[in-house]
Amino acid sequence: MIYDLIIIGGGPAGITAGIYAVRKKLNTLLITKDFFGQISKTGQVDNWPGENAISGIALMQKLEKHLKQFPIEIKTGHKVVSAVVLPTLPHSQGQGSGVEVQIDSGEKYQGRSLIVATGRNAKTLGIEGEQNFVGKGLSYCSICDAPFFRDKQVAVVGCGNAGFETALDLAKFAKKVFIFEKGDKILADEILREQAQKAGNITINLKTEILKIEGDKKIQSIVYKTIENHKEFQQPMDGVFVQIGSIPATGFLGNLVDFDKNNSIKINDKTLQASVKGIFAAGDCNDTTYKQLIIAAGQGATAALSAYEYLQNKT
Amino acid sequence: MIYDLIIIGGGPAGITAGIYAVRKKLNTLLITKDFFGQISKTGQVDNWPGENAISGIALMQKLEKHLKQFPIEIKTGHKVVSAVVLPTLPHSQGQGSGVEVQIDSGEKYQGRSLIVATGRNAKTLGIEGEQNFVGKGLSYCSICDAPFFRDKQVAVVGCGNAGFETALDLAKFAKKVFIFEKGDKILADEILREQAQKAGNITINLKTEILKIEGDKKIQSIVYKTIENHKEFQQPMDGVFVQIGSIPATGFLGNLVDFDKNNSIKINDKTLQASVKGIFAAGDCNDTTYKQLIIAAGQGATAALSAYEYLQNKT
Repeated sequence: MIYDLIIIGGGPAGITAGIYAVRKKLNTLLITKDFFGQISKTGQVDNWPGENAISGIALMQKLEKHLKQFPIEIKTGHKVVSAVVLPTLPHSQGQGSGVEVQIDSGEKYQGRSLIVATGRNAKTLGIEGEQNFVGKGLSYCSICDAPFFRDKQVAVVGCGNAGFETALDLAKFAKKVFIFEKGDKILADEILREQAQKAGNITINLKTEILKIEGDKKIQSIVYKTIENHKEFQQPMDGVFVQIGSIPATGFLGNLVDFDKNNSIKINDKTLQASVKGIFAAGDCNDTTYKQLIIAAGQGATAALSAYEYLQNKT
Repeated sequence: MIYDLIIIGGGPAGITAGIYAVRKKLNTLLITKDFFGQISKTGQVDNWPGENAISGIALMQKLEKHLKQFPIEIKTGHKVVSAVVLPTLPHSQGQGSGVEVQIDSGEKYQGRSLIVATGRNAKTLGIEGEQNFVGKGLSYCSICDAPFFRDKQVAVVGCGNAGFETALDLAKFAKKVFIFEKGDKILADEILREQAQKAGNITINLKTEILKIEGDKKIQSIVYKTIENHKEFQQPMDGVFVQIGSIPATGFLGNLVDFDKNNSIKINDKTLQASVKGIFAAGDCNDTTYKQLIIAAGQGATAALSAYEYLQNKT
């Protein structure tokens, strides 16, 4: 079986690409670990047009349900570990090159075109204690864990939108929330800053850096320093939420396509084609300026329509 | 009052731009004739992710309702008739250039940045009888009128997706639907072609051109010719639906920004900025390859975030 199109990723970009591809009657395989993606880690989504204050999980469920209305083949539960270009596909009747992707079980799939919509993974702090406490008070995802911190003290690292949204989620449960940020200014949207101020139990510590996370079976304290005068402080803490950005989930591609310095896939901005013909990148894994759900979804549509055009011209 | 941002257009691009702009606390004015846009002319929308088989009107109502949750100033009922760049805004405290737009009532509004999200308008046939029968059997919009053609004969001009969707809407009511298309091949998606075949009452006439629409108080017949041998035929007909594409609704801009040969606004594909700094174009009025609801919405978000960046760097 050689698919017309293989889509890797089950977030808004991959799902929208799938909807558009099957509507163009492309014989499509979508491979994804699950349909949760990054957005299900956000408590509440307010900026998906048409859905005011929907939970990230509910939105993803709507998208998944919509996709499954269409005749698309879906492989879940596995990650893609590698992808190579095949100069000639077997049984391809002169239709030229294609791609072969391999998943973590060893199975391989061949397609005449590929859309990479794998998004991004959370960055880690890389400090002492971090890995020991994952799931024991340390989290990269507020929605999963916020309710466990009722009447506790919690640290959030990072003061972009994700950091503020996490702090706001936590503030509903926690006694005190402390935002730690290396830089000297807040990066979150005004509306989130105001909400944080109103919450009344969120403290923002700019120009500070967490050095160490301490505890026994669970987190008990953190050690942080002030950037300007290098003073160190120990503070009792029950949890640490890391929201310092993300890196594109593009490692499995090796050197197959060109990347920018942040490991984002370089694309033609009109077609979303990567540096290799027939390979497209949609959503947060490419070098688009803004990373937003609705932008990723729009790019999923563009990538599928570009793949369709590519296949039409190829045959 | 000088707005941070003026948005022109109340379709998916304009609404999404509005949602994103007010979340960035930009003091925003959105000007639109109404919140229906082109999509409300489509009976059923199947490719807005998360909404399977929603009516165009219902989708637009969801978007409008979402926008109105936010503190945005909205001016409806009027069209923008002109836009000029002001080298220096009065009272702008050294913040440089801005734009002034005028609506059809004569009122003028000033903004420090502008997003054009005016979409496209339907193309007309330009043939004898066409203008006489607008609203009397001739339509550029299937959803508005399809139910009036129960057990009648109807012509659809154009065989792209819009033409096929219109024919399918009509086929539920009409006795017979005839698609007329100058070209020699069907441009609609496979899935729509199959549905048209299944409908059983849709006939496709390729390489034919409608020359004249005839009738008295309403349409009674059409005259068409075959392109290859120039034979003319008269055929009884109760309605004509024109679906031959659209042109960008950008006339009010004059020569303010650069356009491509189709009058689409030329944009920087990453920021959506037009050829004039501080002016952005989102959705179907710009020179993006694919015109789709979800792509337009994504672009609305990008344009608002770009406008925000522009204003931050300006002050």
